[in-house]
Amino acid sequence: MTTLDPQVAALLKDPDALIPAIVQDSTSKEVLMLAYMNAQSLELTLTTGKATYWSRSRNELWVKGATSGHYQDVQSISLDCDGDALIMQVIQTGVACHTGDRTCFHTPLELRS
Amino acid sequence: MTTLDPQVAALLKDPDALIPAIVQDSTSKEVLMLAYMNAQSLELTLTTGKATYWSRSRNELWVKGATSGHYQDVQSISLDCDGDALIMQVIQTGVACHTGDRTCFHTPLELRS
Repeated sequence: MTTLDPQVAALLKDPDALIPAIVQDSTSKEVLMLAYMNAQSLELTLTTGKATYWSRSRNELWVKGATSGHYQDVQSISLDCDGDALIMQVIQTGVACHTGDRTCFHTPLELRS
Repeated sequence: MTTLDPQVAALLKDPDALIPAIVQDSTSKEVLMLAYMNAQSLELTLTTGKATYWSRSRNELWVKGATSGHYQDVQSISLDCDGDALIMQVIQTGVACHTGDRTCFHTPLELRS
């Protein structure tokens, strides 16, 4: 079991909670997906440079790309002001979405204002 | 009580769950913040064009900017592939973060890879 660096853990609102992680293409600035990290996957992301999540559906660590080859090489990572969300700028190999689309955000909603 | 359009509700994985909403500056593509919406705040966002959230700390609807003047005018909004996260492109009046910073993501973490 990998343990999160205590200096990083101290920055989190709740080190035992899942943290939503926004994934942004480091060049185009397109937002590719949102996934969740626990403390262990955050530590692995910081130490390996490969985006690693906690899969809520499979209840296991998830190295993005381990099965698809679509790795995310992390270029930078930042926490938000209250330490309960983070953003990563990545170089995306292949596509981010399991549907084959480059980004997971591909269902526009109609504004009725 | 505002009710979410049934056609939109049908696109959500769970219309009773809180949905993380990523907020991106429509021009610079900078990600400004992450907040949460329930069905009611999503409907209000779609019909008013002003980003409206559900405050988890205050347990109430939160029209961003109602007290600060820092409204977010929504230009586009999209759901992700599994209907449990969304992104909005906005025109941000003033700053997004309550600290006075333009973005809430201002705590970089050190990559040790």
